[in-house]
Amino acid sequence: MISETICLDLTEMTKIVDLQEIKEILRNIDPIQEIEDGFVAFSRGNVVVPPVGEMIFEDPPGEAHIKYGFIKNDDFYVIKIASGFYNNPKIGLPSYDGLMLLFNQKTGELISVLLDEGHLTNVRTAAAGAVVAKYLAPKKVTRIGIFGAGVQGRMQLEYLKGIIDCNDVIVWGIDQQELEDYKKEMEKQDYKIETTMQSKDITSSCNFIVTCTPSRKPLIHVDQIVKGTHITAMGSDTPEKQELDAAILGKADRIVVDSIDQVQSRGESYHALKSGMIAKEDLIELGIIIPNKTLYRQSDDEITIADLTGVAVQDIQITKAVWKGIAPTE
Amino acid sequence: MISETICLDLTEMTKIVDLQEIKEILRNIDPIQEIEDGFVAFSRGNVVVPPVGEMIFEDPPGEAHIKYGFIKNDDFYVIKIASGFYNNPKIGLPSYDGLMLLFNQKTGELISVLLDEGHLTNVRTAAAGAVVAKYLAPKKVTRIGIFGAGVQGRMQLEYLKGIIDCNDVIVWGIDQQELEDYKKEMEKQDYKIETTMQSKDITSSCNFIVTCTPSRKPLIHVDQIVKGTHITAMGSDTPEKQELDAAILGKADRIVVDSIDQVQSRGESYHALKSGMIAKEDLIELGIIIPNKTLYRQSDDEITIADLTGVAVQDIQITKAVWKGIAPTE
Repeated sequence: MISETICLDLTEMTKIVDLQEIKEILRNIDPIQEIEDGFVAFSRGNVVVPPVGEMIFEDPPGEAHIKYGFIKNDDFYVIKIASGFYNNPKIGLPSYDGLMLLFNQKTGELISVLLDEGHLTNVRTAAAGAVVAKYLAPKKVTRIGIFGAGVQGRMQLEYLKGIIDCNDVIVWGIDQQELEDYKKEMEKQDYKIETTMQSKDITSSCNFIVTCTPSRKPLIHVDQIVKGTHITAMGSDTPEKQELDAAILGKADRIVVDSIDQVQSRGESYHALKSGMIAKEDLIELGIIIPNKTLYRQSDDEITIADLTGVAVQDIQITKAVWKGIAPTE
Repeated sequence: MISETICLDLTEMTKIVDLQEIKEILRNIDPIQEIEDGFVAFSRGNVVVPPVGEMIFEDPPGEAHIKYGFIKNDDFYVIKIASGFYNNPKIGLPSYDGLMLLFNQKTGELISVLLDEGHLTNVRTAAAGAVVAKYLAPKKVTRIGIFGAGVQGRMQLEYLKGIIDCNDVIVWGIDQQELEDYKKEMEKQDYKIETTMQSKDITSSCNFIVTCTPSRKPLIHVDQIVKGTHITAMGSDTPEKQELDAAILGKADRIVVDSIDQVQSRGESYHALKSGMIAKEDLIELGIIIPNKTLYRQSDDEITIADLTGVAVQDIQITKAVWKGIAPTE
């Protein structure tokens, strides 16, 4: 790297925003509305998302993905670049990196480069969980159950604030140290945290559950699920990953997904469809529910499942939300 | 845009380079070797170039392309974003814009953002013309003929400096004012410039010709071509564009292309293949010629044609060349 300091007059140039600045902006904005609007536009067929670009590297093993798209007749288009290099921790670097590019849809001008290092992908994922909670959580959440004591397990709680009025949380993990770190950190944020390595400790005490692990075998089995439970499953974004017993989807009163197209090849719904537990007709998109009050949770008895696999419109919307936080008058 | 000045310590961060800085760096580097190496790697099958990503906008009409790839076992990978918004000039903006992103192939880290506004695409195109000249130009160039008095018509001359020892130039165009501007500007750079609107004025006096126009019908006909002529055709990069009568390729002793794969669907070779004037076996890649002296121009009588449609490895290599100009010790 080069050692020098430069001064940039931003009046006339593209705005480059680093992670620290992005985090500051995020403290002052609420991206949930933007994410909601994105899901609605998506389900109305107003979002253009071309196939993902991909580069695979062999030595050391790594991959880079390019996701991009736009809402028709919007002001912007967005290109997101994300990489995963799994040997990076050996040399003291994080495995994941990424950035977002925001362009003017009317002129092609590059408006902003958000050097978010992958953080905005976590934020848009957490914000989607919050959107689901808004419309599908039980009226009275007795206790929040989180599967996964990693970054997303923390961010879910952060983005549920203001939506779910409950600070009693139980978190499941596979590593005692990770669980203790989680407890310590989240208790500073006024949560009451219990930790466990037993799945049933969560299902027996929580009516609002979020799963955010990279598990490849079900963490929750169908006989653990009682009336009135809501589960948001957001860990599975590939055909291999699975957090819920497919029979849980068969038992559910409602299965909400981010993209009906996408869940036919990945996520929890994929497994449930493949095993015949559910049919495509049993699925409803989040973007269909949001503008339609009659589709919100109707009773305390319903079992509802949200299967979130992650869609590019979330990347588009989180980038716009951050930009609006930078340049609110534009 | 926001009105503020920020100071960045570049020691620890991604290097953002604007067009002015890129132009300064280009004055101090010779990217031709890098472009040559790229063509050789490409023809050896060492370049990975996934399909181009594309977004099409309707109102106002515009498009954005994402080209990306890498040389296997190299230090870098590159993503190029280019846009064309054809109504931009009405609001005082250029139609084309673009940027290059350079990443570390071993870790995925973003190394540099080159905000080149499309300039590096022009440079890598001009540099490819120079590479062709190095190996295929007649020993004694009597006069240089340029079709097209635009940016590329200027840059070709600039990059031929030091490769072709000739400052006698005739340029063809369709707009008198554009031709006069070209003459005025290039004469300042010590060229003797004649202008014309007659194609035959070029072919009758030049043994080294470069075509760089967006023409959709042939500008040069086969009966204009005499022994010892070299033509580099670089204007056509789509199936619709065509600068040379297909019969010229049939008459040529050698047809050099940047990518045999690519010219089967675009460029001059595409038209000549389609009309049966040539066969695929008549084509040889520039990257095969460069390391093989026996394939360089052998006599003053040969008619040689180079058909350049533009390949992503040029983008990769020009980006690396600029970066090496910024951080030569890395």
